[in-house]
Amino acid sequence: MIETSATALVAELEAVVGARYVLRDTADVEPYFMDWIGRNSGEALCVVRPGSAQEVAEIVRICAYHGEPVFPQGGNTGVVTGSIPLKGGHGVLLSLSRLKAIRALDKPNNSMTVEAGLTLAEVQSTAASIDRLFPLSLSAEGTCQIGGNVSTNAGGTGVLRYGNARDLVLGLEVVLADGTVWNGLKTLRKDNTGYDLKNLFIGSEGTLGIVTAVSLKLFPRPRQLAGAWIGVPDVSAAGGLLATFQERFDAALTTFELISGPQAAIIYAHVPDARSPLPDYHPWIVFAELSSPLSSADLEAELTTALAEAAEAGLVRDAAIAQSERQARDFWRIRHGVSEANRRQGLNFTHDVAVPISRIGDFLAQADAETTRRFAGAEVYVVSHMGDGNVHYTVTFQPDRVAELAPGIDLGARVTEMIHDLAVACGGSFGAEHGIGQRYRASLKRYKSSIELAMFRQLKQALDPAGVLNPGKVLPES
Amino acid sequence: MIETSATALVAELEAVVGARYVLRDTADVEPYFMDWIGRNSGEALCVVRPGSAQEVAEIVRICAYHGEPVFPQGGNTGVVTGSIPLKGGHGVLLSLSRLKAIRALDKPNNSMTVEAGLTLAEVQSTAASIDRLFPLSLSAEGTCQIGGNVSTNAGGTGVLRYGNARDLVLGLEVVLADGTVWNGLKTLRKDNTGYDLKNLFIGSEGTLGIVTAVSLKLFPRPRQLAGAWIGVPDVSAAGGLLATFQERFDAALTTFELISGPQAAIIYAHVPDARSPLPDYHPWIVFAELSSPLSSADLEAELTTALAEAAEAGLVRDAAIAQSERQARDFWRIRHGVSEANRRQGLNFTHDVAVPISRIGDFLAQADAETTRRFAGAEVYVVSHMGDGNVHYTVTFQPDRVAELAPGIDLGARVTEMIHDLAVACGGSFGAEHGIGQRYRASLKRYKSSIELAMFRQLKQALDPAGVLNPGKVLPES
Repeated sequence: MIETSATALVAELEAVVGARYVLRDTADVEPYFMDWIGRNSGEALCVVRPGSAQEVAEIVRICAYHGEPVFPQGGNTGVVTGSIPLKGGHGVLLSLSRLKAIRALDKPNNSMTVEAGLTLAEVQSTAASIDRLFPLSLSAEGTCQIGGNVSTNAGGTGVLRYGNARDLVLGLEVVLADGTVWNGLKTLRKDNTGYDLKNLFIGSEGTLGIVTAVSLKLFPRPRQLAGAWIGVPDVSAAGGLLATFQERFDAALTTFELISGPQAAIIYAHVPDARSPLPDYHPWIVFAELSSPLSSADLEAELTTALAEAAEAGLVRDAAIAQSERQARDFWRIRHGVSEANRRQGLNFTHDVAVPISRIGDFLAQADAETTRRFAGAEVYVVSHMGDGNVHYTVTFQPDRVAELAPGIDLGARVTEMIHDLAVACGGSFGAEHGIGQRYRASLKRYKSSIELAMFRQLKQALDPAGVLNPGKVLPES
Repeated sequence: MIETSATALVAELEAVVGARYVLRDTADVEPYFMDWIGRNSGEALCVVRPGSAQEVAEIVRICAYHGEPVFPQGGNTGVVTGSIPLKGGHGVLLSLSRLKAIRALDKPNNSMTVEAGLTLAEVQSTAASIDRLFPLSLSAEGTCQIGGNVSTNAGGTGVLRYGNARDLVLGLEVVLADGTVWNGLKTLRKDNTGYDLKNLFIGSEGTLGIVTAVSLKLFPRPRQLAGAWIGVPDVSAAGGLLATFQERFDAALTTFELISGPQAAIIYAHVPDARSPLPDYHPWIVFAELSSPLSSADLEAELTTALAEAAEAGLVRDAAIAQSERQARDFWRIRHGVSEANRRQGLNFTHDVAVPISRIGDFLAQADAETTRRFAGAEVYVVSHMGDGNVHYTVTFQPDRVAELAPGIDLGARVTEMIHDLAVACGGSFGAEHGIGQRYRASLKRYKSSIELAMFRQLKQALDPAGVLNPGKVLPES
């Protein structure tokens, strides 16, 4: 019965996009059904690869008619199983990867309009081609797609100065649950005409609509950069340094990453060509970068002075200032080595919490104490976009210890609940930049008030009453 | 019948807030029922002045029970009749002005949480009291309230660097249509956990919920300022100057206002102590300001150099650089003299449109041509937050000409339709920062697609199914 209906559905989809863009062979569909980490997979009736927003709209209409869900997917680099289909084989995986047009470049307006399937790196280089900066930056940028970045409100390393994906979007084109296309592709800095549909779709992870094109803000490219790799005695000193740097440099402070000593050490140990820029071990490292278009400012001198004063105040133990572009790139290579190092170090459970910047020290102290108390043999590695209050707290176990520590129980779930509880108790959030997907639906239910959950359901009901769009994601079971 | 029910309602409200905070006398209620301009008024059964979010919630519950609408009001400085009740005397005017608590100041987190009734000036000075900047700034700041600023997504003169009110909000507390209180008062830079309720309430003008408290972003205070009053030959030159300044100064460019020669001239003529900083008349004026926390930069020198180069390139005819804080304040006094000058000049119809920055020149040329063609004797005055693409285009008539020009027709409506049509045809918006209120509901219906209007209605239906909150505002009659 399902098979017959599936055959009819596939035929209709082929009539829209052409047979070559409807994939059913196991080898063809597997990269779309398996998530980026390779731990989780789902399945759908087929993968369909439309070439335009109109084709996306027709696919949604067809699926809605057949009562089959649509699972939209960009670069499939998400870490919360939001971009893969559910188990069970229902519905259609809709890949946006063929929507690649650059629709408009408007240099005097500092804006561009591009389709959802461009990779983030392609968006960055398109901006650079007109001497502009598109500042969203994250380690998956060669693969992730701008539609997915916007649908998930991606964060990354440029947030301190330029904001999240949400802050970089001027307008959207969205295919709605009934297969109509909403053209909200304005390129305006100000538009106060009705409810903010744009921000409702951003971060909704494809559950309210499918983003097919985006209008983006562009910025002038910095003319000067200065970076430093800084050893600090503790988190409180790092917080003091951040406050000093923000007061001194404001928008010129574009990077302020905090890395725990053990985290840095395993990067140096596991990642080829990652060598410590400092001779000694430090309990915490701050990687800070300044950038500015002002030609009369001397960023390196300002940074040197600021670091010397901070050292006198006891905030800084040692620092290496990048003496060349190459050394600055080396700092970034170390920073981007976190995932690889953690993967090699053991079985790790990473977290993506946010707390007010003033509470990062409290949160870390509590998390460390509880981890030690409850999980003997656990190792802790911390990297934080400190200027955003975003802490990636990773608890790692040597694989041979896991069975011993937690016989028959889900160790990861226990660790995660503990970390999330602590973050929320510090006035924080259990999810800073990675989103909810399937992975954190239970946390959403645990930490959100019934009032907030009710509003989420009312909004889903209002915009996708039949539940066509990315079911099983974001919203918990009621 | 209505009177009986009204008496019961008033008694219930008095039981919540105390009799002294329920106003019914004509003299007491008039300031709440008449709008700021003094042109428009409405009426309600009473004015109620709760002292807490819980009291606001109880009032909403009582009104919902009685089937009476609630009209929330902050400082009542809006210009789109969004903050006054409707004609007809139904419902309750709910003033937020007693909600004045400063709930939290967190300097290391650069955030503060305050109640809705603080004036914008009080919010600014509270931030200054901990050596921080709250950058929202507009001419009504001594009277308007932060709850209203957020509910209407206010703009003003700081948008170029710091964004609209929307961009300055970290969290909200909102009383919903059923009288529950949503506590969304996070102070996080990153929080990707579900749908963006915050931005849905911001700019909804009290039609989806009543904002009772807000968590706000704070910034370091600038250490240096440099400003210039610049004569330019035409709008295209102003656009070239803006592009140059943005590339050169990026976030240090905090003001870029464009003022037409005739607009500047009537300010000098009508506003006491407003004297032209430049000896000659120029067709267009740019008022630009730089600010920066960088101590090694020399803003005045950079501005002087940039202006000299722009003059060589033909973009600038003459410029006065502020030589003192007092002269900088004089520039601002001229800029803020626009409303007064226009009021004195004649019967004026002002507009609040936005277009892409690259289209400002086109828009102005078309608007001038059409105004001249269709409205003999019309005078045109233009002031623009050019860096935001926001143009306040004012068409003024000498009162004795009005009857002659447009016998028996609504002249203002004709002018407005023409200007709005032209802005929208340039890829723009008919409403940049003032909102919709009652005044622009017809424009909303005229310019929004049926798809967008349908979503607006679905959202209203989802969050306020009984239509309790600020009816007759924003959404057009269906």
